[in-house]
Amino acid sequence: MNPERIKKVQKLIADNGYDVIICTDMSSISYLIDVAPSHMMERLFALAVPRSGKPKLFVNSLYRIPESENYDVEYHSDDDIPTSGLAGYISGTKVGVDKFMMAKFLLALMDERKDVEFSIGSFIIDEARMIKDKDEIEAMRYASRVNDMVFALIPGMLEEGMTETELADKLAREYVRLGDPDNPPEPLVCFGEGSAEPHHTNSNRKLRSGDVVLVDSGQRTFGYFSDTTRTFFFRSITEEQEKVYRIVREANRLAREAIRPGARFCDIDRAARDYIASQGYGEFFTHRLGHCIGRDDHEEPSVALNNDAVIRPGTCFSVEPGIYLHGRFGVRVEDVILVTEYGYEQLVHASKDIIVVK
Amino acid sequence: MNPERIKKVQKLIADNGYDVIICTDMSSISYLIDVAPSHMMERLFALAVPRSGKPKLFVNSLYRIPESENYDVEYHSDDDIPTSGLAGYISGTKVGVDKFMMAKFLLALMDERKDVEFSIGSFIIDEARMIKDKDEIEAMRYASRVNDMVFALIPGMLEEGMTETELADKLAREYVRLGDPDNPPEPLVCFGEGSAEPHHTNSNRKLRSGDVVLVDSGQRTFGYFSDTTRTFFFRSITEEQEKVYRIVREANRLAREAIRPGARFCDIDRAARDYIASQGYGEFFTHRLGHCIGRDDHEEPSVALNNDAVIRPGTCFSVEPGIYLHGRFGVRVEDVILVTEYGYEQLVHASKDIIVVK
Repeated sequence: MNPERIKKVQKLIADNGYDVIICTDMSSISYLIDVAPSHMMERLFALAVPRSGKPKLFVNSLYRIPESENYDVEYHSDDDIPTSGLAGYISGTKVGVDKFMMAKFLLALMDERKDVEFSIGSFIIDEARMIKDKDEIEAMRYASRVNDMVFALIPGMLEEGMTETELADKLAREYVRLGDPDNPPEPLVCFGEGSAEPHHTNSNRKLRSGDVVLVDSGQRTFGYFSDTTRTFFFRSITEEQEKVYRIVREANRLAREAIRPGARFCDIDRAARDYIASQGYGEFFTHRLGHCIGRDDHEEPSVALNNDAVIRPGTCFSVEPGIYLHGRFGVRVEDVILVTEYGYEQLVHASKDIIVVK
Repeated sequence: MNPERIKKVQKLIADNGYDVIICTDMSSISYLIDVAPSHMMERLFALAVPRSGKPKLFVNSLYRIPESENYDVEYHSDDDIPTSGLAGYISGTKVGVDKFMMAKFLLALMDERKDVEFSIGSFIIDEARMIKDKDEIEAMRYASRVNDMVFALIPGMLEEGMTETELADKLAREYVRLGDPDNPPEPLVCFGEGSAEPHHTNSNRKLRSGDVVLVDSGQRTFGYFSDTTRTFFFRSITEEQEKVYRIVREANRLAREAIRPGARFCDIDRAARDYIASQGYGEFFTHRLGHCIGRDDHEEPSVALNNDAVIRPGTCFSVEPGIYLHGRFGVRVEDVILVTEYGYEQLVHASKDIIVVK
C-alpha cells in the first residue's frame, strides 16, 4: 500500500488542472494501491483518482478486492453496463483517461457524460512512476543482477544446430533457477539474418557457424524488470561485423556519456544517432534509442528525438542503439541505467567485449 | 489470406452504414489478412477496412509486413505521430473503431478528425468471426480433442502435497506433448477453498485430502482455442459437494438442451440460471453462462441474460455454470459447443462423472 504514491499523483493532478484521473493500466493500479487481480481480460477494471480524497476502484464482482482504508471499491456484475458507476462518479469537467483504456469503455463514458472534457491523463501517473523510490531502485538493481548472471551463461550454451527456441527455453530455465522461479520470461533470440529484424520472433532456425547471435531478454523480479541485449558471434566474425559491433558499442557509450544534469531525452538519443550516422550507418538505426523501464518493460516516456523533456534523477531507462542490415545481420547493445544527481548508475554489467564463441 | 472474409466484413460494413472500420485487435487482423507480428506492445497496429476496396494496414516500420494484393501497407516510424496517416486516410463520416483500441490513439484520431462520427464498430468483425467456416470448425474440434486427452489424465496426476502450480506445470507439459509443442497454456488450477473464487490464481497451496480440485484449461492449436472446466474430488466427497456438483452438471445439461433454432443467448443462460436458483443456489452463480470462443479464448458476444440475439449455426461458445461457496468450495462444469442447424455439436467429451480420486 502506498499512500505516499497516491499523494504524489494527486499533487500532479491538481498541478495539471484535472478533476479526476481514470487509470486502467494494471501496473499503474498496482503501483498506487497494490491490487492486481489476474485474468481481467476484456472486463472493466478502473481506478478513479480524484484531485483529493480516496481513490475508488470499479471492478467486476467476480474479483474480490481486499478492503483498505486507502481506497473504496464499487462492484458491478456481468449483467450491468460496466461504465455506468464510473460515469456517475465523475465530478468536475476535466477528466484524464488512461492511454491504454479500451475504446469500448471510453466511448461509453463520453456518451454518458457529454458535459465532461476527456483527454489522456495517464502521463500524470507515468510521471510519478518515472521517478523510482528507494525500494524500486533496489528492485531494479536486483533484476539487472539476475540478468547479468544469465547473460554470462550464454556463450557456454551455444551449440551448432540448436534452434532459437531451444536457446530461449534454456535461458528461461536459468531465470527460473537464478531469479524468480514463478515468472519465466520469453527471451528474444535471433540467429544470423534474424538479428537484422528489430522485432524478430523466435523460430526453429538452427544455429550455424558464422552466425551473429543476438539475445534481448529480461525477467521481472520483485515486480521490476531488467532488459539487456548483447550480440555474440558464433565460431567466426567478419571484418564488417566487427566494425558494426564497435560502432554500436561506441554509440551506446556515447549515449550514456550524454546522461548528465540538464540533458534531455532527445540529447541522449542524438548522441548515439549522430555517431552512427557519422560512421555511415544512420539509415540502419531504425528505432528510438530506448524506453523507460520499471514495473513494465516499456514505460513512458521514450528516449527519442521527439522527446525534449529533461531527464530527472530516479529515472531508469534503456540505452539500446542498433544497426540492422536486412537479410544479413544486425547488432544491438542494450543497457539499463538509473539517472542520478550527477550522471547515471549503470545497472547492467554483462560484458560488452567482442565475444566470438569457438 | 482470406479475401472471402474481407468480403463478408465489407458487406456488413455497408449493411450497418459505416464508411470504414478501424481494426486494432490482433486476432481480427490475422483473421482478415493473415498477418500477426508479435511484440507490438504500445505501438499502433491498425487495419482500416473501407466499405469497398482494399484494406490498408498502418504499422510501425520496425515490422516488415509481407506484400500482398489483398491489402496496402503504410509505415510510420517511432518519430512520427502514429495516427496521422490513419487520420488522413479516413474518408466518409461514419467510422467504427475497435472496442480494444487504445484511448491514446482514439483521442488523437478524434482530435484530428472532428468532422467524423466515431463509434464502436468492431462488432461487425466480431459478427463475422462468430460464424466459423469449415476450416475453423475443424480446428475447433481438434483443439477440444487435445483438451479431452489432457483432462483424462488429471485424476491420475493428483498427489497429496503437490501445489496448484505444480499441477498446472504438469498439465502444460501434456499439452506440449499432445497438442501444440510451441504454445504451452497456463491451466487454472484451484484446490479447496480456491475453487470458490471464479478468478483464482494458481498458488503454492498444497493438495490435501478432502479438497475439491477445479481445473479450467485449454490450448490454442492451429490458431483456435479449447476451453474446458472439470471439478474433481480428492480422497472424499461430502454430501453437500455431491449435491452441488449434481446441480451444476444438470444446469450445464439444461443449458445445452436449450440450444436449438431460434433460441437466444439469454435463453441458454436462463435455462441454467433458473435451475440453479430453483435449487436454492441462485446467488452463488455469479457470472455469465459463457462466452464465444475461436481465435481468442473469449470472443464476442456473451452468453448472458443481457444478450437477446438469436444464436446462429457456426457459432462456438462455452457453457459453464458454476456455484461458488466463498471460503469453502466451488464447482464449475464447462463445455464448448458448436451451434448447428438443428441444435448443437458437443466439442468437449471429457467425463462429467463424479470422480473421487482415492
